[in-house]
Amino acid sequence: MTNPTATLLVSCPDSRGLVAKIANFIYANGGNIIHADHHTDFAAGLFLTRIEWQLDGFNLPRDLIGPAFNAIAQPLQANWQLHFSDTKPRISIWVSRQDHCLFDLIWRHQAKEFDAEVPLIISNHPDLKDLATQFGAEFAHIPVNKDSKREQEANQLELLRQYNIDLVVLAKYMQILSPEFITEFSKKIINIHHSFLPAFVGANPYQQAYERGVKIIGATAHYVTSELDAGPIIEQDVVRVSHRDDVADLIRKGKDLERMVLARAVRSHLQNRVLVYGNRTVVFE
Amino acid sequence: MTNPTATLLVSCPDSRGLVAKIANFIYANGGNIIHADHHTDFAAGLFLTRIEWQLDGFNLPRDLIGPAFNAIAQPLQANWQLHFSDTKPRISIWVSRQDHCLFDLIWRHQAKEFDAEVPLIISNHPDLKDLATQFGAEFAHIPVNKDSKREQEANQLELLRQYNIDLVVLAKYMQILSPEFITEFSKKIINIHHSFLPAFVGANPYQQAYERGVKIIGATAHYVTSELDAGPIIEQDVVRVSHRDDVADLIRKGKDLERMVLARAVRSHLQNRVLVYGNRTVVFE
Amino acid sequence: MTNPTATLLVSCPDSRGLVAKIANFIYANGGNIIHADHHTDFAAGLFLTRIEWQLDGFNLPRDLIGPAFNAIAQPLQANWQLHFSDTKPRISIWVSRQDHCLFDLIWRHQAKEFDAEVPLIISNHPDLKDLATQFGAEFAHIPVNKDSKREQEANQLELLRQYNIDLVVLAKYMQILSPEFITEFSKKIINIHHSFLPAFVGANPYQQAYERGVKIIGATAHYVTSELDAGPIIEQDVVRVSHRDDVADLIRKGKDLERMVLARAVRSHLQNRVLVYGNRTVVFE
Amino acid sequence: MTNPTATLLVSCPDSRGLVAKIANFIYANGGNIIHADHHTDFAAGLFLTRIEWQLDGFNLPRDLIGPAFNAIAQPLQANWQLHFSDTKPRISIWVSRQDHCLFDLIWRHQAKEFDAEVPLIISNHPDLKDLATQFGAEFAHIPVNKDSKREQEANQLELLRQYNIDLVVLAKYMQILSPEFITEFSKKIINIHHSFLPAFVGANPYQQAYERGVKIIGATAHYVTSELDAGPIIEQDVVRVSHRDDVADLIRKGKDLERMVLARAVRSHLQNRVLVYGNRTVVFE
Repeated sequence: MTNPTATLLVSCPDSRGLVAKIANFIYANGGNIIHADHHTDFAAGLFLTRIEWQLDGFNLPRDLIGPAFNAIAQPLQANWQLHFSDTKPRISIWVSRQDHCLFDLIWRHQAKEFDAEVPLIISNHPDLKDLATQFGAEFAHIPVNKDSKREQEANQLELLRQYNIDLVVLAKYMQILSPEFITEFSKKIINIHHSFLPAFVGANPYQQAYERGVKIIGATAHYVTSELDAGPIIEQDVVRVSHRDDVADLIRKGKDLERMVLARAVRSHLQNRVLVYGNRTVVFE
Repeated sequence: MTNPTATLLVSCPDSRGLVAKIANFIYANGGNIIHADHHTDFAAGLFLTRIEWQLDGFNLPRDLIGPAFNAIAQPLQANWQLHFSDTKPRISIWVSRQDHCLFDLIWRHQAKEFDAEVPLIISNHPDLKDLATQFGAEFAHIPVNKDSKREQEANQLELLRQYNIDLVVLAKYMQILSPEFITEFSKKIINIHHSFLPAFVGANPYQQAYERGVKIIGATAHYVTSELDAGPIIEQDVVRVSHRDDVADLIRKGKDLERMVLARAVRSHLQNRVLVYGNRTVVFE
Repeated sequence: MTNPTATLLVSCPDSRGLVAKIANFIYANGGNIIHADHHTDFAAGLFLTRIEWQLDGFNLPRDLIGPAFNAIAQPLQANWQLHFSDTKPRISIWVSRQDHCLFDLIWRHQAKEFDAEVPLIISNHPDLKDLATQFGAEFAHIPVNKDSKREQEANQLELLRQYNIDLVVLAKYMQILSPEFITEFSKKIINIHHSFLPAFVGANPYQQAYERGVKIIGATAHYVTSELDAGPIIEQDVVRVSHRDDVADLIRKGKDLERMVLARAVRSHLQNRVLVYGNRTVVFE
Repeated sequence: MTNPTATLLVSCPDSRGLVAKIANFIYANGGNIIHADHHTDFAAGLFLTRIEWQLDGFNLPRDLIGPAFNAIAQPLQANWQLHFSDTKPRISIWVSRQDHCLFDLIWRHQAKEFDAEVPLIISNHPDLKDLATQFGAEFAHIPVNKDSKREQEANQLELLRQYNIDLVVLAKYMQILSPEFITEFSKKIINIHHSFLPAFVGANPYQQAYERGVKIIGATAHYVTSELDAGPIIEQDVVRVSHRDDVADLIRKGKDLERMVLARAVRSHLQNRVLVYGNRTVVFE
C-alpha cells in the first residue's frame, strides 16, 4: 500500500444521503475507496464517518480537495479533517523517570508500526536522556515545580512549535498540565493513565486498586482535557490480578498494560481513526 | 427502532465507485441508511458490504427492491441478499442430551435477544423434550444410528421444510451430518464446536485439550460444511485454565463458553451481519 | 469425589511453623489432604490458608474436629471456620424483575455446579414467581417501599431463619439493605453489581458507563457491607464495547457478564474458597 | 525481600502426610515459609509442591539442605530440585532476525523483572548484533544450514557450557534443534511459538491462521522436546482479530502476544514456579 491515500474524517447532523454524497465526491473525481466506515449515534443525532481513498488516479490536485469537499460539507454543517498518508505526523513524547512506555514506543517506531516522526522528547527529569538520544530524538530536560510550571509550559510550547509537533504523547509524564496549555494543543495530547478509568482517578492508582481489593486492573489512554483524567477515552485494557499480587506486582503487570494501551491509542490516532465528539470517541477499525 | 428496515449484503469484485453506487440506490429512492459497513479484501480482490435502511419513506415497494437492485448488481457481478427486519427467521435447534446451550438459547429468545421464531426442536434423544415443550416448541425425537442415518435425515429435511425453517442451530447435537444434507441447507447450519478450532477437531476435545496440557480452552461457532469442523468460523472465545482444572472442570468452564459463543454467532447471523466468502466470514458490527 | 471432606479456612498473624502445625493436625489424625493452599499477606502480617481432607479414615469424629483444632488455633490467635462437604449450604436468592441471573443460577443448580439447596426465593415484585416455583423453590413476594422497609426486613429475616438460610444471593435485587440487616447476615450476602467497581457505584451504571465513553464494561460480585457497593470483592470480569454499542447494548452485554461473575462468586463461596480479611478477599483456587 | 530464600520443587506419588512431612522439615530447622503451594493430580496419582522459605535463621547450612531433604525424599520416591534465590540463573537468548522478543527481554532484564544474568546471545544471522552488544551480552553469530547444523550445534553446546548457561530462550530463533541437542538441555529450552498450540504447528502459523479464518490468534511458550511444537506448555495467550486484519496485521498483533507470553514463561521458570510432569506443567502462582 505504498500508493499514498487521502482520509476524510467527517461528523455532521444525521440526514438522508450522507453516505451517497460523500462517496459520490470521491467517485466523481475518480478515487478508489480502500476504507469506508460510518457510524450513526442516534442519541446524539450525529453521523460520523471515515473514508480513505487512493490518490493515484484521483482527478483533484491535493490543494483543491479540501476546498472542493468544503462545498459539500458546509450545507451539511459538517466538521471535517483531511489527512494525507505521506504527510508524516510529528510526535513529541513526554516522559518522567519510568522508561517502559518510551522503550516500547521506540521499538514500535523502529518496527514501522507508527507512520510518524519523533523528533523531540521532553522530560522533567534527566534520567531517560540516553535512551532518547540513542533513538535519534532531541531530548529536552525541562524541570518543573509548582512555581516554575507556567514559565516552563511556555518553553515547552515554544519547543513544540519549533519542532512542528502535531501530537504530544504523555508516556508516564506524571505532571498535570495547565488548562491553558491543554487548550493550545486541544485533542492533540494523548495520556496513558494507569487505571481503568473512571476508577482510581489521580495519584497512585495501583495503591488505590490494591486497597480496594479489585480482581482486575486496567489502563486507559485518553485525550487530555482540563478536567483531570476525564478526557475522551481512546482505548482501555485490563489484566487479572489475585490476592497473590501486592502493589509491586500490580505495578509490574500494569506496565505491560500501559504500553500496549498507549501504543494502540497512538496508532489509531496516527492512522486518523479516532473521531472525538462530546466526551466520547469513535475509533474506526 | 420499530420502523422496519431492509438490509442488503453484497459481495463483488472490487472496483471504483461501489460505495457510491450502492448508497445512491438507497438515497435516490428516499431511504435513510442506519447502518453501512464495507470491507475490501485486497488479497481476494473482493468488496463486501452490509447496508441497512429504514423502509418508512422508501419509495420502492418491497417486491421491487430486489429486481431494482439486481439491475445495479449484475454489471458488478455481485452476489447479494436482501432481508426485511420484520420477516422473522425460523430456527430449528438440534440437541442431544446436554441442555446448557438449549437453555441459554431459550432464555435469550424470551429476552428478545433473537428476533426469530423457534418452532421446532429436533433431538436424537428424548431427554430434553420437557424443556422444549415448556418453551412452546415442537419436539421431534428422531433417533439416529449408522444404519438409519440416511433415512432419518430425509425425515429431518421433511420436518425442516414443513416448518419453513431458515436456520438450523446445532446446539451440541453431537452427530455428523451427511454431505447431502449439508448441501441442502448450505450456509444455514451453525454448529458449536467445543474447542478453539482448528485445535482439537472431532470427538472429546476437552479430553484432548487436557492431555495436551493447554493453558487456555476455547469454543468455536461455525457454518457446517462437509469437512468435519472445518467450515467458516463466525465466532470464537476462550477461557483460561490451569493445572488445577481436570477434564470435568474443562467441561464445566467450556459450557459457559459454548453457550456464549453460539449465542453471539446466532445473533450475528439473524441480524444479517455475516457474509461468507471462500472459507472465511466477514462479521459486520 | 463422593468421599466427604472437611475444609478448614484459617487466618492468623504470620509466624513460623504454621503450615507444619496445621498439616500435622490433619496427618496425625490420619487425614488425606486433597487441597491445601496458603497465602501470606506481608503488608498485613497475616497468614491465610485453606486445607481440605477426606473424612474417610480420619480418626477424629466430626464433632471433635472443631474443639481439637481450636486447641491449636487459640495460641496462634487464629480465626477459623470448619465446613463439611456433605452439609449442603442453603441459599436464598433475592430478585426483582430481571430474570437473567435467576435463570442462570437455576440452570447451574440443576447442572450440579452448586453443591447447595435453594429453598427460598424472595422478591419485591411478583414477576418471577412462575420461574421460582417451576424451580421447586418457595417464592415470597415481599413488596418494599421507603416506609415499609424496616418492617419488611423483619419479615425477610424471619423467613431466612425459618428456612435455615446460610447465604443470601442478591441476583439483581436492586434494593439497598439496612445496615442492621447486613450486620445480621454479615459476610453471608453476595451481590452482583453491574459495573467494574469502584467505577460507577450506585444506580444506572450502564448509563454512567455510556456517558463516560468507556471501551470496556464490567461486573463485580462482592459481599454486602453497610457502605453501598464497597464490600469485599470476590470476582470481576469485563467485556469490550465500542462506539457502536448504545445503552441497550451495554445492558445486553452486561447481562452475560453479570450472570457469569455472580455464578463464579457463588460457587467459590459454596466451596469455602473465599476468605475475607479487612476489605479484601483471598479466593483460593 | 532481599533476604535470600531456598525453594524446593517436589513431585512424588500421592500419599498421606506429604504436606506435613515437607513443612516439618522446614519448621524443624527454623525456616520461615513465605510461599507454599501444593497440587494433587488425581488422574496421575501425583503430589506436586513448591515451597520457599527464608534462609536467614535457617539452621542447616546450604550445602546440607539437599542431603538432608534427600533423606525425606527417598522413601517418598520423590523427584526434587533445590534452588537458592541469590544464585542467579544464566540465560542464553537465541534469535534470528526479528528483534521484538529480544528487545522486550532486554527491557525486562534492565527493569529487574528477571532475576538472572544474560551473558550470551546466539543468532544464525548477524542483524541483531548491535542490540545484543548494547545490552552488554556477548553476541555469537553462528550461521546454520542443513549441512552445517550438526557441527554448529556442537559449537553452540560448547558456548553454552563455556558460559555456564542454565536456560536457553528461543526468542524467535526459527530453527529446529536436533533431538540430540534437546536431550543435552532437557527442560532447559523455552520456545515461543507464534500460534495457539496445538493449532498451526510448524511454519507460517499466521498465514495458516489467516487462511483458516480464525477470529482469535494466540501464542504459546513451551519447553522444547524432540517432537516439533509439542513440548510441555508453560503459558499461552490470545488476541481477537477480525476480517479487517490481513496477514501483516496478524503478525503485528502477534508480536505483542509473543513477547508477553514468552516473558511470563521465562519469569515463571526463573522463579522456579514451573514443574514439568509427563507432557504437562504445573505453574505455581
